[in-house]
Order: sequence, then structure tokens, then C-alpha cells
Amino acid sequence: MTPLENAQSLNGTGVARIRDAELRERARVVIPGGMYGHLNMGAMPADYPQFFESARGARVTDVDGREFVDLMCSWGPVILGQHHPEVDEAFNRQMALGDCLNGPSPRMVELAERMVGAVAHAEWAMFQKNGTDATTLCVTIARAATGRRKLLVAKGAYHGAAPWCTPVESGTTPEDRANIVRYTYNDLESVRAVLSDDVAAIMVSPFRHDAGYDQELVDPEFARGLRALCDETGAALILDDVRCGFRLHFGGSWDPLGVEPDLSAWSKAIANGYPLAAVLGNDKYRAAAQSLFTTGSFWFASASMAASLATLDVLEREDSVGRMTRMGDALRAGLQEQADRRGIAINQTGPSQMPYLSFVGDVDWAVSIQFAAAALRHGLYLHPRHNWFISAALTDDDLEVALSATDAAFGELRPLTD
Amino acid sequence: MTPLENAQSLNGTGVARIRDAELRERARVVIPGGMYGHLNMGAMPADYPQFFESARGARVTDVDGREFVDLMCSWGPVILGQHHPEVDEAFNRQMALGDCLNGPSPRMVELAERMVGAVAHAEWAMFQKNGTDATTLCVTIARAATGRRKLLVAKGAYHGAAPWCTPVESGTTPEDRANIVRYTYNDLESVRAVLSDDVAAIMVSPFRHDAGYDQELVDPEFARGLRALCDETGAALILDDVRCGFRLHFGGSWDPLGVEPDLSAWSKAIANGYPLAAVLGNDKYRAAAQSLFTTGSFWFASASMAASLATLDVLEREDSVGRMTRMGDALRAGLQEQADRRGIAINQTGPSQMPYLSFVGDVDWAVSIQFAAAALRHGLYLHPRHNWFISAALTDDDLEVALSATDAAFGELRPLTD
Repeated sequence: MTPLENAQSLNGTGVARIRDAELRERARVVIPGGMYGHLNMGAMPADYPQFFESARGARVTDVDGREFVDLMCSWGPVILGQHHPEVDEAFNRQMALGDCLNGPSPRMVELAERMVGAVAHAEWAMFQKNGTDATTLCVTIARAATGRRKLLVAKGAYHGAAPWCTPVESGTTPEDRANIVRYTYNDLESVRAVLSDDVAAIMVSPFRHDAGYDQELVDPEFARGLRALCDETGAALILDDVRCGFRLHFGGSWDPLGVEPDLSAWSKAIANGYPLAAVLGNDKYRAAAQSLFTTGSFWFASASMAASLATLDVLEREDSVGRMTRMGDALRAGLQEQADRRGIAINQTGPSQMPYLSFVGDVDWAVSIQFAAAALRHGLYLHPRHNWFISAALTDDDLEVALSATDAAFGELRPLTD
Repeated sequence: MTPLENAQSLNGTGVARIRDAELRERARVVIPGGMYGHLNMGAMPADYPQFFESARGARVTDVDGREFVDLMCSWGPVILGQHHPEVDEAFNRQMALGDCLNGPSPRMVELAERMVGAVAHAEWAMFQKNGTDATTLCVTIARAATGRRKLLVAKGAYHGAAPWCTPVESGTTPEDRANIVRYTYNDLESVRAVLSDDVAAIMVSPFRHDAGYDQELVDPEFARGLRALCDETGAALILDDVRCGFRLHFGGSWDPLGVEPDLSAWSKAIANGYPLAAVLGNDKYRAAAQSLFTTGSFWFASASMAASLATLDVLEREDSVGRMTRMGDALRAGLQEQADRRGIAINQTGPSQMPYLSFVGDVDWAVSIQFAAAALRHGLYLHPRHNWFISAALTDDDLEVALSATDAAFGELRPLTD
């Protein structure tokens, strides 16, 4: 079923999604709450599929055969599109040799060299599996280097789901969070107010992308100010580039600002969906990185590293950031035209490659949820409370389907337009 | 080069390993210390390869073309042998559909059902990527359920490499470890001595497999005593089955003892080398598991889950535990005969599928290291300070090469036998 056929067949009525319903029922028995984590669709509109069957390019298909144009990209990991031939070939070629061995393959050295070459502040690299592994390792390295304990993070910022950083406190102890101190994003005074001689590091996202809120680009003066405060106090500047890395700029998200972190955390898009994370650092933190013990059973597996090498090659050669920006710009322009035509007041925030749309005055996301559910029925997959992700695989055809779906969705927002 | 040709060509002289040396040199520039974690060969005999090229069955080949019979199995993940056709086919079939999507595929429900069906204590499952993710999540669930903070772990036990559990303190804070209390393995009195009404959980390995020490099987009375203490105090019993899971017993490592943990942590072998981890729990801990937020960008990826389903099918159908036990027994018998014949006093400890050999009086591992280096030169890959792992792919031919290598290695232990 194409997105158009999907839109036609459902036509706002909500066709029974038998397979998804059956799988949810089975999942409720053997998985706590039926699902967990960021892909738990329990609180999303009922039409949202919990289970997916397949994907290709910028299209995803759920277990009931509904195909959608995908504006979530698996929440970031898919940057060149699903099943990119060059990336998959590199993955498969390495897999045929060996993946999880008694040591890494040459791919690990090649990838470390490649990332050090691509990202300005980086003089060394370490690899892991989860974004949380990378953010946690950055903090551990900063503490080892400084002998200090405190970590400054922005209020509301997401840096992973380990006990020290998960947004839900259940199961965490006061000690897990005893050394976390909060500042306000883009407010240098709020950082100064919590600085002390026990601050090991300041962690910061490339821009403010807290779920459920309009996105806020970084103030370049704030970024430069953080760098200066770290230089003054000897704290490490940690850029959490897990969500944005390689989507905003090939050389690291703050490269255009000329602000170099000491340590940066990467994951999600660096291998186009294959599992990998990385920490990059400068020489000031090399000895500290070497002093600690961190590892994982699959951290040295080579196939994801081969996929990452191919991903970086394509991203750089094809200027994928430029393409994602142009497609994101076109999506935004279309959305703005559609909303303006109907007199609907919307906010579009964040970088074009990671767009977010909200409705003015929609404090409880009721309108966003209605809009997302309608877009879904018309063949477009997006999220009402979390930034979206554009991939370089999004074609003009995909964009047309997407804008056709959003146009219909705006048109169905009766309570707002009546 | 076969192991025999390898042995002949090197013949104890140590042929130059040009590619490994070149890669180590490059790695020193872009990776702190040149390597990190459990696969860092920096402290191993010089002949040990840091970098590997490929693997098949129970054979691994390093970047200089030396082929070895493998008794480390990537430190546990490889249980059916490298490139098991049925597992790889399941992985590739799912990968062709989709791996990292906007939600899990049906494989996640199928795998949760399969593991709940296979492991006696389990009534639900959650999946992650690292063994450390699984052990950490078990602790978090226990704390959420009990509202308590303390975690009892055995002195010297390895439960992962996050700040709360990494064996090296560099970069950790006192707060990271403030709630960790130590007991002595197989010593119930030592557990009783540190029990309090703030104990959320007791974590325990199926047997004592601390690196660098002779292994010690669990005393069934100790296992039953832990269960009773947890029942008395309301603490959760957490079995860390990351290293042993599915190698000792298909239904969980303490199943033969009839001791059911409340929560168990799994990783390594559950998908025959593809990256996956799992937490299994009983209904008493279901609501707590549901109450917290834990996730990862690649935790819901389906190809590793498909591989795990196939791995469990093969393990159960072919009684792989039985096969690994028989091959491990044969290896042990051979080693004992070779040592006895030369009057060399050795200890062989732990389960046959996870054997460990040490030399009586060899307090600084000097003899073990000499033995391992000699075995390596003769075509056998094992580790001098860490338990080994047998895979079900080990053939009679492999065993013959292995025992031929160990026979030569015993013969070269001049300082001991002279």
C-alpha cells in the first residue's frame, strides 16, 4: 500500500489494525507495560503503530501493511535513509569476514582516524554502543582528569537513560544524582551561579531540544561563554552531539560557531542505524581516558564500524547536510503556507534538518496530537511532542506526500479553525 | 594458514607480525593508550594479536593471517561458533526487512515469549545492548520496587563497567559506589553480616569467575541461603547471568539448583555474537520495571533479536550445553594427562564449558602467561588470567589442534620442569 492508497483506504476512519493489536496484546503479557522507553507508543494516539514490519529509503511500513513517509528516522539513527546500498554493502562485507571477535578489526583504527580527521576538536576516539554509554564516559573522563565531582547540565535536557540522567526518578537514588547541578540553557549567568571549584564538566546539547517544548537554537555568545568559563575554571566542556551529530554539520555541531568542546558524545546517526556510539576528545583528556576501565561485549564489533566509515564517506561526498537542510527548508515553507492559508498560528523551531512544529497556545499538546494523528492517517509519520528528523533519502515525491498529508491534517483541525 | 602450518612456521621463534604492529602504531595516535577495555592486549604477551581479520566456526584469523583454534569465543558471545548458518540467516532475513525502525518488529514479542518460556523464573523480559545495561537495569528495578538503596555484591565480582561497578576507580565518585556493599562469595555469614533494612537487592554470579583467580562453583546451600535471605528481608535476588547465560544450562544457570532469582541479567551469548542484552523478571517486579524510564537508540533493533531467536532454537534442539560440556571435559582430561605426564601441578576450575587452568604456586601468572604465549605460537588462542569459553562449534579436529598446542606449551615450560 502506498502512502496515497493508505490515506485513501483509511480516510480518517481508522481501519482496524489487527496485527498491531494482536502483538500489543501478546506484548502486555511478556513485557512490563507492553513496551518501554522512547518507542513506547502507549501514550500516543491509538492509530500509531507500535510494531513495524520493514523500511526502505524514507518510507516505513507497519505490521498491518500501512506505508508512511518517515519524518522520525528511528528517532535519529537513520540519516542516509533505510537500506542505503553503500552503507549496507560495507556492513555486509565486514560481517562476512567477522564482527564480534577476540579483538577489533582494522576498521576500528580506520574509523578512529576518520572521525579524528572529520571533527575539529578531536585528537582521539573511543567507541561504545549506546548514546548513554558515550555521555557517561565523557563525564567519567572529565572526573578522572580533574579529580572533581560536579557535572553541570541544563534543566530539562536529555543526556541518556542511566540512573544519573534518566528523566524519570523511579529506581534512582539521591546519590546517583548528588553531583548533578542544573543551569538554564542559553543563560550564562545561570551557569556562573552554580560554578564551583568542584565542577568537573559542563555538559551541553548543540541546541535546546527538550521533548515537549519548542526548540531553541544556541546563542553563539552562550557557546563561547561556556568555553571561556571552562578555560577559566579547568572544567571540561562536553558537547552531547548524540542527537544532532552529523545532521547539523559534518565536522560537529558547534564547528560553525568555532567553539571546540574538550569531549563530545556521539551515537544515533554515525552508522546510519547500525548500533554504535563514540566519544571524541582532545589531548588534554587523553591520559584520563586511558586511566579508566570501560568496555562492553560488543563495543569492538567491526560491522557497525564499517557501516560508519561508509556513512561518513557518503555524508561528506554528497553534502548530505546540505540536502537535509534544503528538504527541511522546503517542508517548513510548505507547512507555513498551509497554516497561514488557514489562519492557524504555528511555531516552527530548531534546525531545518531536525524540525519541530507546535501550535500557539497548545499547552497540553492536544492540537499537536490531533494534527499528528491526522497526518498519520494520511500517510505521514511524525511525532507531536518530539523533534522530527529529516534523512538525506527524502525525495521530492516523499515531500509531496508529506505536505499533502499535513495539508489534510491542518484541514481536519476543526476545533481550531471553526 | 592452518593452525598446524601456523605452528610450524612460527615454531616458537615469533615471526614478525607486520600488520598488527602497524595497526597498533596507528591506534596509539587516535585511541587513548592504543586500546581500552577487556580486549586491550597491551599487557598480554607480545605475540598476542590486537587486531583480527576474520573468523569461522571455532577458528579465528588475525590480521597477519595466523589462524587459531579459539578458546575465548570473543569472551563469551560466540556460543554456536562464528557464522552459524541458521543464526546468520535469521539475522540477514530480518535485516533485509528492517533493523532499527520507529518501533520494534514482531521479533521483540516473539523473543520475550521465547525467553519467558525458556527460563523458569521469568514472567517478563526487557532488552538492551550491553551486559552493563542489564545489570544496571536489574538494580534500578529492585530499587524502584523496594524503595531501598543498598546493593550487595561479592568482593572481586565483575558486574559491568559503569561507574557504579567498574573494577577501576578512576573517574568514579564516592557517591557512585556509596550504596554498594560487599560480601564474600559462598559465605552466607558474610552476607548476613551486611544485611540491613535498606538492602534493595543481592546480586550474584552463577559461580565465582573473578578474573585472575581459580574459579569456584557455587555451593548450592549458599544459593538457597541467598534466596531465603531475600525472602526474609524483601530484597530482590539478582542473578548476573551475563557471562554464563545459556552456556551452563538452557533454562538459566541456577535452574539445576532449583533456585529462582527475582531478576536476571543476560547478554553475551544470547544472540551468538550479535549485540543484545536482556533483563528477565518475575511478576513481583513487573510494576517496578514498568515505572522507570530506560531506553537506547538501538535497543529495539530487530536483527539481533531474530538472531537470538535462532540461537535459542539451535541451543535447545541440539543440546549445545551437552556438547560444550563434553568437549570441555575432553579438553580438561587431555590437559590433565599432559600435565601429569610431566609432573606439572595444575588447577582446573569452573564448569567444563568455561574452563580455567592455573599452575600451582604461580602467584603472579608468570607461568600461565608463558603457557598461553606458547599455546598461541602453536595455534591455540586462550587467556592466561581469565576463564576460557567453549563453543558448540568446537570439532574433534579443533580439539586435536588445541591439545597438540597445549602439549607443546607444557613441554616448553622449561623453568618449571627443569
